[in-house]
Amino acid sequence: MHLTPIPGGVTAAKGFLASGIHCGLKKNPEKKDLTLIYSPDKCSAASVYTQNKVAGAPIVVTKEHLKDNLAHAVLCNSGNANTCNADGIEVADKMCAAAAQALGIDAADVIVASTGVIGQKLDVGPILNGMPLLVESLSPDGNDDAAHGIMTTDLTMKVSAYSFEIGGKACAVGGIAKGSGMIHPNMATMLCFITTDVRISPAMLQKAVSEVAVDTFNMISVDGDTSTNDMLSVLANGAAGNAEITDAGADYENFKEALFAVCRDLAVAIAEDGEGATKLLECTVNGAPDKNLARAVAKSVITSSLLKAAMFGQDANWGRILCAVGYTQGDFDINKIDVALSSPAGSIDVCKDGAGLAFSEEKAAAVLKEKSIGIRIHMNSGDETATAWGCDLTYDYVKINGSYRS
Amino acid sequence: MHLTPIPGGVTAAKGFLASGIHCGLKKNPEKKDLTLIYSPDKCSAASVYTQNKVAGAPIVVTKEHLKDNLAHAVLCNSGNANTCNADGIEVADKMCAAAAQALGIDAADVIVASTGVIGQKLDVGPILNGMPLLVESLSPDGNDDAAHGIMTTDLTMKVSAYSFEIGGKACAVGGIAKGSGMIHPNMATMLCFITTDVRISPAMLQKAVSEVAVDTFNMISVDGDTSTNDMLSVLANGAAGNAEITDAGADYENFKEALFAVCRDLAVAIAEDGEGATKLLECTVNGAPDKNLARAVAKSVITSSLLKAAMFGQDANWGRILCAVGYTQGDFDINKIDVALSSPAGSIDVCKDGAGLAFSEEKAAAVLKEKSIGIRIHMNSGDETATAWGCDLTYDYVKINGSYRS
Repeated sequence: MHLTPIPGGVTAAKGFLASGIHCGLKKNPEKKDLTLIYSPDKCSAASVYTQNKVAGAPIVVTKEHLKDNLAHAVLCNSGNANTCNADGIEVADKMCAAAAQALGIDAADVIVASTGVIGQKLDVGPILNGMPLLVESLSPDGNDDAAHGIMTTDLTMKVSAYSFEIGGKACAVGGIAKGSGMIHPNMATMLCFITTDVRISPAMLQKAVSEVAVDTFNMISVDGDTSTNDMLSVLANGAAGNAEITDAGADYENFKEALFAVCRDLAVAIAEDGEGATKLLECTVNGAPDKNLARAVAKSVITSSLLKAAMFGQDANWGRILCAVGYTQGDFDINKIDVALSSPAGSIDVCKDGAGLAFSEEKAAAVLKEKSIGIRIHMNSGDETATAWGCDLTYDYVKINGSYRS
Repeated sequence: MHLTPIPGGVTAAKGFLASGIHCGLKKNPEKKDLTLIYSPDKCSAASVYTQNKVAGAPIVVTKEHLKDNLAHAVLCNSGNANTCNADGIEVADKMCAAAAQALGIDAADVIVASTGVIGQKLDVGPILNGMPLLVESLSPDGNDDAAHGIMTTDLTMKVSAYSFEIGGKACAVGGIAKGSGMIHPNMATMLCFITTDVRISPAMLQKAVSEVAVDTFNMISVDGDTSTNDMLSVLANGAAGNAEITDAGADYENFKEALFAVCRDLAVAIAEDGEGATKLLECTVNGAPDKNLARAVAKSVITSSLLKAAMFGQDANWGRILCAVGYTQGDFDINKIDVALSSPAGSIDVCKDGAGLAFSEEKAAAVLKEKSIGIRIHMNSGDETATAWGCDLTYDYVKINGSYRS
């Protein structure tokens, strides 16, 4: 299938509007803190959520609202996670009710999300006061405002969209995401909202979302901490007019491919913008005996604090790569592992059959100077592959997280 | 039982000699890099090892040598881990042979260990050349030299010893340890060597070592990376003259209590000296439904990069504590969790029933300014307890690990 990158993010698909405003939750009045995504046509809706037992109140409320897998809108604030608050559910309910009233829809058709500091009461006042402006601002050009409204410590706006065809009909899928720290998703990302005009049944949409999350958002890590508020939600309004996808045939595979591309783009953007990061790390595992082991090895490597610090220092300390492979749970032969480092500046083999190779430190330094580093692992034990993305561990990560609340 | 802290470390127990010299593996001639611990009487010997699939060559050789659970000596170099080298086993064998020849014992009675950079060939020359001086330097006063000879990025020497009585006989147990980074032990610490003059069968010694490791060295973490060379070895020469401990009665329990005290002291010292650390973190879990869950929750908290950075920043961001509790594997009710922070400056309740409490930021700042921070978690779901130790995540951790090889 042919996928074409297009602009527009969550408004790339036909029939979706978005907006983002500053309502007053963030101190800086120039920073947006409230986002709305809306489809006048009711959508099939599917989500995956954090596996953390501490689930933010918005997660609880959204799960309830998506029991029928139908929704009209996504409402999200930044600056406060509305998590571990005694009145959290009440606040999330009020947010949904306000959006529903302003949009003339049912509160149960609102997906609600919050991101920011945990355990501080979320004052719903600014959100309620901002609702008229938020709804008034809804626009097919509102993607960038919406993308900014969900950001916390993010330095970059995360947007991706593609056009493609299903059954001769022009379709689009696009999304926005936020996330920079507390990134080690388990079933979802920090926050990612995706829209599509593909006509697809709620059940098949949920299947696609769950399948795609495993190899995209669940394969990134910034700091090994799984957030309490992770959520990936997808709305499909059917405006493309394709024959509804109701089973796992070619149309489903095509849609999944497009959804995968958006999710991969956004997941990689989150890893690249990891708190304090100066480098994107991409670990590819080939030749694994099974898929889950391939995923586990790739994640183990990009999660290692020691390796992450070495990458910041541009030090080809490949022993730390092998060490992280070695503590991966599972049954495999460490003596078959080959490791190479790569970047736009070239590639260099550093380890073969579990033992070190002589290599040019000069060439290694040139490879590691680049912004994007590939860690290529071959297990020589099968045909399965996996890729995980992470970032280096830097002074700035410590700085950002040493004083997050202040 | 009454335990009295005493000086002397690995030479505190009767009949043990130790030495440490600079043989040339470290560039700085003032830094010791080779250590020997020796008992002229043959000892019961027991070890636990890293669970990393990448096991250093010395681990492989020591496992072979301890099949009979008997040993005379420990030989350890620092500066090079002798891991992931094609000729690693050969080098480790040569080290044992040289020590055995100089001491007039069997090579199979030598425990061998190495610590330092992974994947660079270990030149055995300096070790062989240094052997005569190393053996000549053996002394009942050699503990501190021995402790220095096993250090890598450690800033502090780690020594502990206690005297106690078994069956009316004066006994001692004492040890040395090293470890500062790549600390997330799985069945052992980085390197820890313990000696005792207690008479105990090899089987009971192994039982004691395995039991004690679970709640001491396996409960610390500096950076979540399990090393390839972790080893805890204990030698018992029987010089105290007590009736041999051959079953799990009162004498065994007394010995285990003393061994626990030494292991706990050394484990805490490693956490406190974590690479770049400015604070020791001690997480105590009470009211857990089972012991393993208590351990898992405590380790999850002290392993969180976000919490570690917040502690460095003296920020009472307790939401990160609850978040780390929440992603612990296992079945429990997050809404029953209470959290308090404590230090020599006082104690402050920050979370009750999984929700935040109003607290004085001023008081919290005073508590978190101290060097030693307690994180007290009550699960209100049973009677089990566990304690884990870690350290904060600092600029210096990144600095140290960004350029370890250079």
